[in-house]
Amino acid sequence: MKDNIDLIKLIQQNFAKLSKGQKLIAEYIMENYDRAAFMTAAKLGEKVGVSESTVVRFADTLGYDGYRDLQNELQEVIKNKLTTVQRISLVDNCSSKENLFEKVFKKDMSNINKTVDEIDFDVFQDAVDKILNSEKVYILGLRSSSFLAGYLGFYLNFIIENVTVVTAGPNDIFEQLFKVTDKDVVIGISYPRYSTRTLDALNYVKEKGCKVIGITDSLISPAARISDITLLASSNMVSFVDSLVAPMSLINALVIAIGMKKGDDITKYFKDLEDIWKKHSVYNFTNKQNENIRNK
Amino acid sequence: MKDNIDLIKLIQQNFAKLSKGQKLIAEYIMENYDRAAFMTAAKLGEKVGVSESTVVRFADTLGYDGYRDLQNELQEVIKNKLTTVQRISLVDNCSSKENLFEKVFKKDMSNINKTVDEIDFDVFQDAVDKILNSEKVYILGLRSSSFLAGYLGFYLNFIIENVTVVTAGPNDIFEQLFKVTDKDVVIGISYPRYSTRTLDALNYVKEKGCKVIGITDSLISPAARISDITLLASSNMVSFVDSLVAPMSLINALVIAIGMKKGDDITKYFKDLEDIWKKHSVYNFTNKQNENIRNK
Amino acid sequence: MKDNIDLIKLIQQNFAKLSKGQKLIAEYIMENYDRAAFMTAAKLGEKVGVSESTVVRFADTLGYDGYRDLQNELQEVIKNKLTTVQRISLVDNCSSKENLFEKVFKKDMSNINKTVDEIDFDVFQDAVDKILNSEKVYILGLRSSSFLAGYLGFYLNFIIENVTVVTAGPNDIFEQLFKVTDKDVVIGISYPRYSTRTLDALNYVKEKGCKVIGITDSLISPAARISDITLLASSNMVSFVDSLVAPMSLINALVIAIGMKKGDDITKYFKDLEDIWKKHSVYNFTNKQNENIRNK
Amino acid sequence: MKDNIDLIKLIQQNFAKLSKGQKLIAEYIMENYDRAAFMTAAKLGEKVGVSESTVVRFADTLGYDGYRDLQNELQEVIKNKLTTVQRISLVDNCSSKENLFEKVFKKDMSNINKTVDEIDFDVFQDAVDKILNSEKVYILGLRSSSFLAGYLGFYLNFIIENVTVVTAGPNDIFEQLFKVTDKDVVIGISYPRYSTRTLDALNYVKEKGCKVIGITDSLISPAARISDITLLASSNMVSFVDSLVAPMSLINALVIAIGMKKGDDITKYFKDLEDIWKKHSVYNFTNKQNENIRNK
Repeated sequence: MKDNIDLIKLIQQNFAKLSKGQKLIAEYIMENYDRAAFMTAAKLGEKVGVSESTVVRFADTLGYDGYRDLQNELQEVIKNKLTTVQRISLVDNCSSKENLFEKVFKKDMSNINKTVDEIDFDVFQDAVDKILNSEKVYILGLRSSSFLAGYLGFYLNFIIENVTVVTAGPNDIFEQLFKVTDKDVVIGISYPRYSTRTLDALNYVKEKGCKVIGITDSLISPAARISDITLLASSNMVSFVDSLVAPMSLINALVIAIGMKKGDDITKYFKDLEDIWKKHSVYNFTNKQNENIRNK
Repeated sequence: MKDNIDLIKLIQQNFAKLSKGQKLIAEYIMENYDRAAFMTAAKLGEKVGVSESTVVRFADTLGYDGYRDLQNELQEVIKNKLTTVQRISLVDNCSSKENLFEKVFKKDMSNINKTVDEIDFDVFQDAVDKILNSEKVYILGLRSSSFLAGYLGFYLNFIIENVTVVTAGPNDIFEQLFKVTDKDVVIGISYPRYSTRTLDALNYVKEKGCKVIGITDSLISPAARISDITLLASSNMVSFVDSLVAPMSLINALVIAIGMKKGDDITKYFKDLEDIWKKHSVYNFTNKQNENIRNK
Repeated sequence: MKDNIDLIKLIQQNFAKLSKGQKLIAEYIMENYDRAAFMTAAKLGEKVGVSESTVVRFADTLGYDGYRDLQNELQEVIKNKLTTVQRISLVDNCSSKENLFEKVFKKDMSNINKTVDEIDFDVFQDAVDKILNSEKVYILGLRSSSFLAGYLGFYLNFIIENVTVVTAGPNDIFEQLFKVTDKDVVIGISYPRYSTRTLDALNYVKEKGCKVIGITDSLISPAARISDITLLASSNMVSFVDSLVAPMSLINALVIAIGMKKGDDITKYFKDLEDIWKKHSVYNFTNKQNENIRNK
Repeated sequence: MKDNIDLIKLIQQNFAKLSKGQKLIAEYIMENYDRAAFMTAAKLGEKVGVSESTVVRFADTLGYDGYRDLQNELQEVIKNKLTTVQRISLVDNCSSKENLFEKVFKKDMSNINKTVDEIDFDVFQDAVDKILNSEKVYILGLRSSSFLAGYLGFYLNFIIENVTVVTAGPNDIFEQLFKVTDKDVVIGISYPRYSTRTLDALNYVKEKGCKVIGITDSLISPAARISDITLLASSNMVSFVDSLVAPMSLINALVIAIGMKKGDDITKYFKDLEDIWKKHSVYNFTNKQNENIRNK
């Protein structure tokens, strides 16, 4: 993918050398990119009155690996700008309700798949080491990302010291972060439509010399630009919901990788926890349950 | 799958008619079911000194569709009983770290896939209707499930009235639920190792005549037995982490399905919200961002 | 008290008719009101080179009931403007540490006393009725006031239906309030230094026709101006802490008054709750404790 | 006060040497201590058919400084045992609603007064030093005490490092405390009807060698017996509400005392915070407000 290239600029720079039909496509995209991003090559061609193959060649001319590649970038660029209302109307127009249902799940699976494919193991391992070697670990997430931040904190608290989840509360997030130093790391979770305050807070800790690990959806997301290390997992925007399924899968992998590095400590921790859970009946030990089954 | 059959009891009932080799397998499983559940047919055979095909026939004899089917049930039955320490040791013994990483993602994808395959559209639609037609909707989740409960509440709050997320807080969960009536619905999210208090609370509201929609991992989970409607999505237990990826995907589908039924109201709601978000700069509108890209 | 009069403007209007010594006082106050507000008449006189009695007459001339009355107003006007740093320096200069300690408690008691003296029973009763007759009751408090909001919600939840505490969380406070109607009431708790967002949110619900009950520190506070009903309880600002003791006392009275109006329902509710608490060992029943005492 | 003596046992031991009239009182108290604790000497005398002075002498015989002293102890001993329902009925019988209102405030003031009178400055200073010299400070409070814990944490977070508020949440309180060491301090806030889990958790950290500072209502409270340092502030139980006004006043004093010891650091911290608050419009700066007043 051509992450750091601006599609619109690319079109403008190459406009002169485009064919007459390609120019029609270019003009349409620049004026209606919100819609073009979700059209097939055939439909886009139909819309501007050219053949599907002209659309495909248009993508080639701009240097993309096919129309799908161009379309992906278009989606990437615009998604932060689409309001929720626009997104709802896209769903209403494009999908039967039956299809929509499966689409949600299929999209979630393909996002996890993409996450595995795109992951850079060295970068991932770098994040693991940074977390293990920091004095304090802050996990920042607001709005729907606050649940991922809480989930990550829930597990990290079992296995490492000095973990703080930073989210909306009585103390402002800036107050919660105002003692970070260059020995700490902040894990910032930021998904479209990127929360302004998350970005402000990441910039704030960056100025204090603190390392930032971003968990976000693309290298061109505003969070990625602030981060020292970026871990990518796509989100799935269908209608008014931003599915955070792939990011959750990434967080699982992160927690397990950190746990593995801690080795036998982990077993010891969980032995102690197991005693606590047993003593305070935290979990349902299924003896009675199984008896019920057997005697049914 | 034979959801409501108890494997151990099945073995006992059929013990007499088993071959000599099959009896060895049966005895091994009853004594070591924690380990047997994660062995291949070949390995299990090796362990008890019989051929792989004997193991496969053993599964057939008990009425399973192959050894994998028997193994799945074995895993289902035991997972609630395996302590976290046992689960960590399973991972340590079975997986190279490289594989583990991919295994997490692959397992998450296969769980989503299983969720789609197993979903009963009528049951799902029934849950949607029950939620839309209740006076109040309570969403109950504790421990790691509290993040799913919060996530579901985050979105339902936008689109329906009288949604309350019930989770650990100053008021006990029983206090938070003590005014439920038979006109309300409680959505209970319960995953292994099933929180005792979640189950107690679901029984408590059930006695009050309240309908219960369970989001859980199997029809034999303790939550499923309490629920009027059960929505299934598997969890992914690797080491000390319970991945809640497939349940999150299910929750997305649920939210969208409810939203679709609300029709134009949704568009109106989000138009109002869009005004609020703009006025209070909740989201990062990317004008500056894009300018930066263009001028880089 | 002369709540709605601006001291500074008053001085300017009366400047011409002041004596020479009084003019020195007037000029000092206008330039140093942050400090003057915390000086005794004697010290203020000393500072500008006039006698204590000149300072007292200065207050009379402006129409105050003595210097203390003028000083109170000065404190009221400025308190919202004093930054925390200024407040810390005031404490450092004015108080021995020993005195400070007692000052905190004495100030808290005098604030409660002032709350009882100033309370208008009709207004108070009006608030009680409004809360009992609303469809939904929202309790809004941010920052240190969020603990009062939570505390009020903790108890109201036992005795009335449809109580929601609105405070910083995954959903923005505007989103939490965006379904209020003119049948609902919002109780807004707002103390110096008044949170901007609380005020914005109260204005927001006011536009929607919702009744606002303000719990705040003075009739000239920004929250009082938005409120339909204002309940007053002073806060106690010493150094960097805003004591919310008197407001908590007011909230207790409010909860009990609402409870009394519910009559026998309350007894029934708490009988049910008592069963829950007993069943789930919420409270420490002191049998063992007393045995210990007896056997010591 | 005779803190560690059990009244009931005392009566039993002295029963033989009591006069005939005193024996009637003794029997009544042992059978009806819930009610006797709230009767005047005159009323108690009337109830059992003896004179008021017989009741007073009864108290003397047992070694109390007057009937009031005996009554106080009776109240102390029983308060943990009175259910909320019993407390509501006490209020219904004893108070007109008008009186009740003032009684709440007056009781709050007298509790603060009692707190000042009873405070041991050396113990208080010891608590301050322990908090300042610990590696980590945990603040534990559940149910209504969770708001005090949050309030204390809100301010301590500004001025010292490594402060964690421990209260009901996704992670169990034992999990939140399971890494405490003997270098840490846990501040436990525990008020009647003492939460079982708070006491369990304080015992748990005590076993780990961690120092415990208890904020509670009496030296015979179960929390006091676990604490290394006990800070006393009475609570005010009227009807179903436990007023935590005096404890809040104590917490203010504690925060300010800690702040004073930090000296210039505090000024620096708040200068930085002031910048943050200004930049993010956290507080309402009253320019517009004052203009409104002037132009009214």
